[in-house]
Amino acid sequence: MNLKELGERAVIDEIWNALGEKVGYDDCAFIEQGSRYQLFTTDFVGEGTHFISDVAPYPLGEFIAGVNISDIVAMGGVPEFFMLSAFMPRDKNIDFIKGVINGIKHILDKYDMKYLGGDLKESSITGFAGFAIGHVEKNKIIRRVGASVGDKIFITSPLGKNAAYYYLWKEGLAEFEKVLEIEPRVKEGRALAGKAHTAMDTSDGLISALYQLQELNNLGFEVRFEDVPLHPKAEEVMEEFHISARVLLEFGGDYELLYTSSEHVLGYEIGEVVEEKINYGGKGYESFSKTLDQA
Amino acid sequence: MNLKELGERAVIDEIWNALGEKVGYDDCAFIEQGSRYQLFTTDFVGEGTHFISDVAPYPLGEFIAGVNISDIVAMGGVPEFFMLSAFMPRDKNIDFIKGVINGIKHILDKYDMKYLGGDLKESSITGFAGFAIGHVEKNKIIRRVGASVGDKIFITSPLGKNAAYYYLWKEGLAEFEKVLEIEPRVKEGRALAGKAHTAMDTSDGLISALYQLQELNNLGFEVRFEDVPLHPKAEEVMEEFHISARVLLEFGGDYELLYTSSEHVLGYEIGEVVEEKINYGGKGYESFSKTLDQA
Repeated sequence: MNLKELGERAVIDEIWNALGEKVGYDDCAFIEQGSRYQLFTTDFVGEGTHFISDVAPYPLGEFIAGVNISDIVAMGGVPEFFMLSAFMPRDKNIDFIKGVINGIKHILDKYDMKYLGGDLKESSITGFAGFAIGHVEKNKIIRRVGASVGDKIFITSPLGKNAAYYYLWKEGLAEFEKVLEIEPRVKEGRALAGKAHTAMDTSDGLISALYQLQELNNLGFEVRFEDVPLHPKAEEVMEEFHISARVLLEFGGDYELLYTSSEHVLGYEIGEVVEEKINYGGKGYESFSKTLDQA
Repeated sequence: MNLKELGERAVIDEIWNALGEKVGYDDCAFIEQGSRYQLFTTDFVGEGTHFISDVAPYPLGEFIAGVNISDIVAMGGVPEFFMLSAFMPRDKNIDFIKGVINGIKHILDKYDMKYLGGDLKESSITGFAGFAIGHVEKNKIIRRVGASVGDKIFITSPLGKNAAYYYLWKEGLAEFEKVLEIEPRVKEGRALAGKAHTAMDTSDGLISALYQLQELNNLGFEVRFEDVPLHPKAEEVMEEFHISARVLLEFGGDYELLYTSSEHVLGYEIGEVVEEKINYGGKGYESFSKTLDQA
């Protein structure tokens, strides 16, 4: 059976089965280090899948750093270090890689992180595997399992901006780089540490996040869609192209935090955790189901 | 200027310059952790550059784990954890990725390491960025700078096996997977920790390693080529195809440790550290200079 037929999550299940263990589905791996956990995550960003071949390198670098940091943040952690495995064709200009590195550096400086080096190899396409390392106090870690019936469901900021820009780009009405503009919620993640019962980022879309959290917690995540805040750009695109909010919320591309808690810490309340799982009519976005060309 | 004109090492210089710091050229990055350093490394392994598209997945997985572990080992470290960013086309069979994972698992089990998870994404080609984490006692770390005049130069085992198999494969006389058969020198690296003055692995070939160590130490690494032990397979290929040892030693592909020390710890003595740099007639192998098709 090929990966398209299985979908990303079933493939990952197969991988863990092959390894003979069930490590779980948190945004990061974590290991004990005294009174805290050290957090590790990796995210691949590739040409054709995440960016077009003539993408501007600086915003691409910011995106590569941002998506990796977001996984640390979703667990309530402090991002500290970053490494990069980069690969690209030999005819690529040096200014491209320098631009990517400068974009990464901008984000690392912003969050007081350190670049630890990496690897650079030749390949027929361009891609980047980032690795981020951080830490979180043991009693403050936020995992994907931990929700209770009665928890409120929150989102850090309005959704749909990146999906909206994707549609505008497809129509020739926006630069592609706008699709890559994200803001890892570092400050918010730290504020949620020790307070949120469960969290994950919305990179694969709200529907995917809700589906996954329901499955892992074996509870219902009942969201009132009329209460989900939408970015002004999303509202503009919905009206202009007669697209439903659902389409934008399935697309993802923004890196907001979806969390549950018994108290309102920050952001927007959009629903409540209930006993019975909600049927959202699908599992949401997974890898191997579409590419930039086909979305 | 493109990457081919610059070559890997000049590009890496440009990257560090863009970052405004000079972190150096050790096999791993390292950060303080009490009485020891934590070691981090990443290595990319890609289709067309490192392996053919119909490669057997199990030996490929062993190779991916092995090359990453080798960097930890070259610094005298204990490898502990491994992560993987994998990307491949959607029509790839699930058995391929399971085979790769089982190959990785075999190597991790062998060295009592733990898999920490990773990322899996779609791409037009197949590639893997491995990420290994380990540690070494502060007073035992082996760096690339540290050689002294009068140090002897050693190599852990005979060289040239992987280069020889590469030539045999090109002639249709060996399976490609033999090119990927490596043995990260975990036991040897630990025996050298605190004793070797400098070390690196020979993955880019002996000439490249000597050139780099000379530049970094600003000393001569005078190797007596008649004393460099060659693998029986290398000798067989040299005779059969009238290839010089130099060609095989430039190719690399084996992951032996080249080290200097005032004492013979293990392996074969092949030369001595002297004041004046030796002209080896080239810088040895670097990325962007050749691919599997063109070698």
